[in-house]
Amino acid sequence: MKAQDYPPAVLELIASLKRMPGVGSRGAERLALWFLQHGRNDACRLSAALTSAAQDISTCPECGFFTTAGERCTACDDPTRRADLFCVVEQPTDVLPIERCGTFRGLYHCLGGKISPLDGVMPEDLSVEKLLTRVRSAPGCEVILAVGSDVEGEATALYLAEQLAALNCTVTRIAQGMPAGAGLGHADPITLMRALEGRRGL
Amino acid sequence: MKAQDYPPAVLELIASLKRMPGVGSRGAERLALWFLQHGRNDACRLSAALTSAAQDISTCPECGFFTTAGERCTACDDPTRRADLFCVVEQPTDVLPIERCGTFRGLYHCLGGKISPLDGVMPEDLSVEKLLTRVRSAPGCEVILAVGSDVEGEATALYLAEQLAALNCTVTRIAQGMPAGAGLGHADPITLMRALEGRRGL
Repeated sequence: MKAQDYPPAVLELIASLKRMPGVGSRGAERLALWFLQHGRNDACRLSAALTSAAQDISTCPECGFFTTAGERCTACDDPTRRADLFCVVEQPTDVLPIERCGTFRGLYHCLGGKISPLDGVMPEDLSVEKLLTRVRSAPGCEVILAVGSDVEGEATALYLAEQLAALNCTVTRIAQGMPAGAGLGHADPITLMRALEGRRGL
Repeated sequence: MKAQDYPPAVLELIASLKRMPGVGSRGAERLALWFLQHGRNDACRLSAALTSAAQDISTCPECGFFTTAGERCTACDDPTRRADLFCVVEQPTDVLPIERCGTFRGLYHCLGGKISPLDGVMPEDLSVEKLLTRVRSAPGCEVILAVGSDVEGEATALYLAEQLAALNCTVTRIAQGMPAGAGLGHADPITLMRALEGRRGL
């Protein structure tokens, strides 16, 4: 007797869904059955969206953010943004969190990672040359280093500050300190140390 | 100034992923960015699997389990299975859990739901006629009612028992009692009551 199992197309769907981060065997099976029982239209829609995104989405030749292939992103294309203010982030995914806080009105620059010799990421693997070119063509600009506050982020910020020192620009770093709404009791010592170091007059 | 946002193809991918059960806005965005940054091949693979499953997967004309369109399922097609033993389940998704326990060697019958007037599911919405036809063509068979042990499951089992009473078959119900590995301290009163009622000599 052969054990009953799902047809090959269902097994392949389960295997494909399981590749997604955070989705295990049981979750993938549950999703596949949901698509078959309640979501055939959703399956077709997601299928088309995946193909379209995989084929059409590229990175902006200026800043490295996601954009439709062959086009510059909406920020780089926006003449009302300040062209003398650059916000340098690690990944394109870091752009929208800054955009959502609603106060930054300049341009972005996505490095594509952070310097991390242990992971084999060296400065030449990042979009540093392009950043220097952009800064050179905007004399007197400000470059805000909005990379992470972990060890690799700090190393990346230091490296960029050195590279930018010879150019006609101001280099700043986003503040480190207490996150909004947090009590002192839950802050770790390094955060508190940096919050004290960065204190401001009222 | 227009706020920077993802390109339309990415927004559509996020919206499509969010339709999946258990995936919220943040989870959908995280998955979409994963597909763009690390999983373009996986995106194409999942896209193809979704299309293929949505188009090719149908239900077995005999038992209602998933099968490739136009074919009977592997169980109904297997001559080594007992043709005089039917296991009646609510959904096609209930078949594999039984199959995995490895002791059932008969055929399945998926009702497509359970009687639930509050949800508008009446007996005529279920695959009952087909079940009666299958039982009639297998005189002396046994029909195991493996529907759920909730109120609607019990109502469905009672209804099926009535319908099957006039036919030449034995009707049984899977046992209710303590789940494997559970301590008495965690059992609810109804489960304990049924476990006591269903006690067996050693």
